[in-house]
Formats: sequence, structure tokens, C-alpha cells
Amino acid sequence: MARLLIKNAKALLGTHSTGTLRVKGAAMAELPQVEDGWLLAEDGVITDLGPMSTWPGITDWNGLEVIDATDRFVLPGWCDPHTHTVFAAPREEEFVDKIKGMSYQDIAARGGGILNSARKLRDMDEDSLFASAKERLKVMMHQGTVAVEIKSGYGLTLDSELKMLRVVKRLKEALPLQIKATLLAAHALPPEFADDRDGYIRLITDTLIPQVAAEGLADFVDVFCETNYFTVAELERILVAGAKHGLPGKVHVNQFTSLGGIAAAVKQGALSVDHLEVMEPTDLEALQASETIPTLLPSCSFFLRIPYAPARALMDRGLAVALATDHNPGSTPSGNMNLVLSLACIQLRMLPEEAVNATTLNSAAAMGMQSELGSLTVGKRASFIITRPVPSLAYLPYAFGTDHIDTVIIDGRPVRSGEAL
Amino acid sequence: MARLLIKNAKALLGTHSTGTLRVKGAAMAELPQVEDGWLLAEDGVITDLGPMSTWPGITDWNGLEVIDATDRFVLPGWCDPHTHTVFAAPREEEFVDKIKGMSYQDIAARGGGILNSARKLRDMDEDSLFASAKERLKVMMHQGTVAVEIKSGYGLTLDSELKMLRVVKRLKEALPLQIKATLLAAHALPPEFADDRDGYIRLITDTLIPQVAAEGLADFVDVFCETNYFTVAELERILVAGAKHGLPGKVHVNQFTSLGGIAAAVKQGALSVDHLEVMEPTDLEALQASETIPTLLPSCSFFLRIPYAPARALMDRGLAVALATDHNPGSTPSGNMNLVLSLACIQLRMLPEEAVNATTLNSAAAMGMQSELGSLTVGKRASFIITRPVPSLAYLPYAFGTDHIDTVIIDGRPVRSGEAL
Repeated sequence: MARLLIKNAKALLGTHSTGTLRVKGAAMAELPQVEDGWLLAEDGVITDLGPMSTWPGITDWNGLEVIDATDRFVLPGWCDPHTHTVFAAPREEEFVDKIKGMSYQDIAARGGGILNSARKLRDMDEDSLFASAKERLKVMMHQGTVAVEIKSGYGLTLDSELKMLRVVKRLKEALPLQIKATLLAAHALPPEFADDRDGYIRLITDTLIPQVAAEGLADFVDVFCETNYFTVAELERILVAGAKHGLPGKVHVNQFTSLGGIAAAVKQGALSVDHLEVMEPTDLEALQASETIPTLLPSCSFFLRIPYAPARALMDRGLAVALATDHNPGSTPSGNMNLVLSLACIQLRMLPEEAVNATTLNSAAAMGMQSELGSLTVGKRASFIITRPVPSLAYLPYAFGTDHIDTVIIDGRPVRSGEAL
Repeated sequence: MARLLIKNAKALLGTHSTGTLRVKGAAMAELPQVEDGWLLAEDGVITDLGPMSTWPGITDWNGLEVIDATDRFVLPGWCDPHTHTVFAAPREEEFVDKIKGMSYQDIAARGGGILNSARKLRDMDEDSLFASAKERLKVMMHQGTVAVEIKSGYGLTLDSELKMLRVVKRLKEALPLQIKATLLAAHALPPEFADDRDGYIRLITDTLIPQVAAEGLADFVDVFCETNYFTVAELERILVAGAKHGLPGKVHVNQFTSLGGIAAAVKQGALSVDHLEVMEPTDLEALQASETIPTLLPSCSFFLRIPYAPARALMDRGLAVALATDHNPGSTPSGNMNLVLSLACIQLRMLPEEAVNATTLNSAAAMGMQSELGSLTVGKRASFIITRPVPSLAYLPYAFGTDHIDTVIIDGRPVRSGEAL
């Protein structure tokens, strides 16, 4: 049996009880911790933990790896519940065009944006897509991410959407981190359907969703509900079809405009509503009584210089806010959850404890993994971060742009081990 | 003789000619480069470079280290001309207080801010200050910084300011990167002089400046010219005294208010004016005909959520814009120049080429090191960065929050070597 013992940790952070599957509103400011702690993992699962004063000592050294975490924090690995990490190529040329003053419309008019990514992806073979996404995910694991959701949505044809989801399936098998897949065929209207919106929606609801569900290629379904993209009625049709085939919704809403997508998503029992940069009082009301998780993407706001989502207003309504990177080549070319933590505190005005709950337990819940990830709890996967020596939890988001991670463990095995500088 | 050969570089970036000691205005958009390049360093100095087609081959392998930079860029190491990297302790508790809604005034009223750092620094011994600053500088070197300016200003007494500058002197001797020291006694009025401003200015001009100059403890003199800190008249007195003792000015101006400090600094021949978040037309005019370098600190704007300096307006006036981190425990707890590069492009709307010129050649010039650093030029120090495989220069700022550095060389010797992920 493979066993890993962490001892002398300055604190174990995020030691939520077994029954706590998400934290809501004011409770987000509390991050349970065990000071001067030890933690035991056996065969990839946390089997015991406590303060050093309760440590039983080691009697059986067989197959036991020991890490002394003196002066270091242990905290749950980051769960990133909204990414587009499978893509054909970065789009830094559009970034430069925007600096030069070109508008989104200009860029779209000459074939930029999502359709640019779609064109490149359709031309790329599955092996190349797999290899490049694998490299990106290795960087994200190095940055402390232990679980990630990945969307399709750059295919926009039956074959290319399936190709993307097959790549995600191969990534699940090839890498130690946990991966959830989301069908986002409704990311943009493909040029082939420019005059037949309904035909494309039917392709999604009648062909793609059933086939993807039957082959187990996706866990969720997504729609980009936005002016010039998909309407609230289209979102509803897709969520209904997804639910019929066991794929809950995780949807893009309220990034640039408030169309009523949140109320519709809540009505259809969506697991999460993501973005939320533009929120009207009716949107907050629609969410308030629901179990749908508002998932915020501050790195996207940072890169696009659009408003930040109203995290405090959402927490004031008693909601379980989650955070994600939105890693994608257009609006968020970064998969770094540590920077999301800093942005959450600096820009969303979340307390460090709130931000850690939102990047671990609540973000695990935003992809349905709250029973196995998101906290240091007996029975959960032993997937966590050991920091470098830092003075406090608040130091992690405060000292932004600095790598505070020493070791990353996934399922009891190090995927990154401490380095001396 | 120690020799280092870099070959097969995708491109050598920033290969400015010997006579180019800074780049101004429109010229900043041009970053000279050699594609498919090689570069030879001997005894820490660049002695030759060119495209692989001109490579003479190796006949003498004695003491020669060879790095194959296939698919990688080589660019000058970052020069960071404005930091406060010697300090006693981080101030993340003030960061949390601000999130909770406390104002700067509230925090200052209970002893926070610069005076908080000063109190802690006065109580800390020189060895501890040295050790903690050394660790921070090692992180900065790992992030590609090869030269840094460090200010005093948390001492605010004769003894404590001298203690800080002695720590900087020891850091120069202990670390491979180049360090310039700046006397910033006029950072805040110490409580002991609350009723005697003139007495404190006289302590600076009549005692500190002469002593620091005589002992060679500083290269520059600085003043925080701002409402509630120091006036334009006080700035002038200090710059005049500095000039008399061979210490040019590098001054904090226009962070929150435009008081006329820029015109005064230009008149006194200041090497740089730093911050510039609040600029009136008269400030731009005062700078326009001068050789004073506007040095912008976008990480400070990011962390404090204050306006970003008008980089494009400054370049439009034909000025040589430089960039720095402002690394300090209050307003910028980050010494990461890679993030400054991203912020320059995302927030200041600088082109990648402009941002690289501003973080290398112009930032070297902003600390008087343009003859020895800031470009890949024969005769300069062999201090440079080798990137990981990246598709383009623009990818470096675009893919923000990701570590693109493979190797950092200072004076011909690696201070960070390539790591496999």
C-alpha cells in the first residue's frame, strides 16, 4: 500500500467536515484549519489527519513517504471548473491587433475570435491537439491545479466537436489530474449554419447530445448565451436536451449583457452559471434561492479589461461563489489559479478565506466533484498543495505573481516536488 | 577564460547597436533582432553574435559551455529600476483590512503604511534584513531580473537609513545581479519630526546626503513628492543637495496628485520621474524636451486599483518610457517583471516590442546602466534570458501568469537553468 505522511505543517487549511459539500455566503469567510498538523494518505485517499499533538507516530515504515512541512501550509489543490484548454493555437496576433486599436468587430470581420480557433482546430489532427493540451495541463498541474473542466466549442461541427471530446477523454487517461468534459457546441454559430440557426440547434439537441451522452464523452452541456451568439430560448432548448440525456448545464451567461439567461438556467437546474460580469437585480434574484453555483472568471475581466463580476453581492445573497480561470486563447490565455486567487482578493474584494473556498470546495462543487475533492477531508482524494514557507494564508494572494508552491500532490503522488531556488 | 555559446536561437531579441543607449517614442516599437542566431560570451561579456549562417564554428572547446536554444528566444535580462526590496516584513494584514473596507487614512491612523514598515525596520538587525532581501532578490533573478535599483526609505532616521544602504551594499557583494542604491530618506516624515519638517529636510541635505555620498552608499537620491508627504520645494532642496554630492535624482511624483514635481525634477536634471499615474498636460510638457526618463509602475496600479500611467501619451511625446516593478510591502508585493510586461501590454496598451524596450534598454538607462546592460550588444554584460519554446515575442506578455523562462544568465553564468516540467 502506498502511503504518504505530511507532518509538522504550519496548518492544514480547508479541513471541512465530510458533510460540508459547498460553503455559502457568510460561511465562505471561514476556512477550517488544523494548526501544526499531520495528514496521512493511503492509496491516494486521505485516511487521517489532525494536530501534531494527536499524532500516533510511525510504527510501520513499509512503503511510507514522509514530507516535513515545517513552516508550510497544506491546502486542497485548485479545482478549475471552467476552461477551454483544448485548442489548436494561441491567438496572440489578435492581442496585438487590439493594442493597435482594432475592435472586436474588426477582428471578427476578418475571421478572428472563436471562429478563428474553430477554423484552426478543424484542420488539426487529434494527436496534435492532444499533445498541445497535455503540455498546457502539465503547466496547470505545476501551478497547483488538481482538477479541471474542459469544454469543446472550437469544433462547431459534429466531427470536430467529437474530436475535441475524444481528446479530453485521452487527456483523462494520460494525466493524473481529474478532468470533466463539457459539450459546448453552442459556442458560436458556425458559418455553415449562418442562415439556419435552428438547424444547428437541432444538430446539437438531436444528434450531438445523444451521441456524446451515449459514448460517455461529456459530463455537462454548455451554451454561450449572449448577444450575437445564442438566445435564451436556444439555451433552454439545449439545457432541456442535455437534462434528458443526463448532462447538467454549466453555462456562459451575462458576460457582456443581461438577457435573462440566468433565470432560464436556474429554471432548468443548471449546475453553474459562469461569467456574470454584467448583473441586474433580477439576475441576482433568480440565483438567490437556487442551488446553481455562480462561477466567476476574474482573469477574463483582467485580460479583456471588462468589469469584474460582483462577488460580494453574490455572497451577500448567500450564494456559494466559485472561481475558475476560463483558460482559452482569446480572452484568457492563462490557466494559473494562483493568479485567480490574487485577482479574487484584489479585484473582487474577496477575503483570502473566501477566495480559497471559492477555488477549492466550491469550485469542486461547480463540476460535481465535491465528494472527492476541494477540501482536506478523510475519504477524499489526497490531492493538495504544500506551499513554500509563507507567513500567512493572506500572503498567498497578497504577494501576487510569485510562485508560492513547493509541492503538488495528486492522489497521493507528487506531480511537482520542492525545488531550491 | 569562461566562455558561453548560445546557438540556434529562434531569435536574439534587442540587438541594439552600441550607440543606442535608449529608445524614444515611435522608435520604441522597433526591437532589433537576429533570427536563427548565435551569441558568444567570454568572461561575462558579449563578444560576438550573429545569424547561424555566419557562425564560424567551434575550434577551441576549452572552457566552453554550449546551450542549444532551438525554438527559444534570447533576450536581455529584465532591468528593474524602481524597487523597495529591502524591508522588514510583508504587510498582508493591511491588504486584508483594505478588503474589509478600511481606508488608507484608517490604516495610517492606527500606524499602518510606510511608518508601519519603518517601525519594523528600525527594530530589525542588519543581518536579518540582509537575509530576507537576499531571498527576495533570488526569486527576482529566477524571474529574469539581472539588475535592480533598491531604495532606502523605511529607516527615516540617520542610523536606520544608513543600515538599509549598508544592507544594499552587502547584497551587491553577495549576489550576481547588478544593484544600484537610492537614498529615499524623504519617503515619509518620521514621527520624531512631526513638528519640524525643516529639521528633517536639513538632516537629509546636510548630514545624510553628504555622508552617504562620501561612503559610496548610494547612487541616486529620491523624494516622495505627494500631498501629505513632501512638497515640490522640499523635493528641489533635496535634489539640489544630491546633485552637489554627485547623486542624481530618481523621484516619486504624480502618483495621486499633480503638484508640479515633474517640472521641478526636470529642472534639477533628474534621471527619472517615477509613477506618473496622474498626469496633467503641463506635466507632459515639462517632460517633453527633457532627458528625464518617465518610469511607470503598472503593478502598483494593479494592486492599488488606481489609474494606470498614460504610457501611450508619453511615447507620443517622443519620450523613452521605462518600466519597473515598484516591489514593496505596501503597494506592490511583487517583484515579477514578467507580469509588468503583461500589464504594460494589457493595461498600458504598449506593443510587445515597446514593452520589452521599456523593461530592458530604457529601464537600464533609468538607473544609468545603459552602457553595460539592456540589450544584446557586443561589449555589454552577458546577462540575458532564454525562454521556453514559445511561438512569438507577443506570446510572452499575452500568455500572462505563465512562466516562459527556461534559463537566466548573469555575466555569462547561469543563475537559473532549464527545468523539465
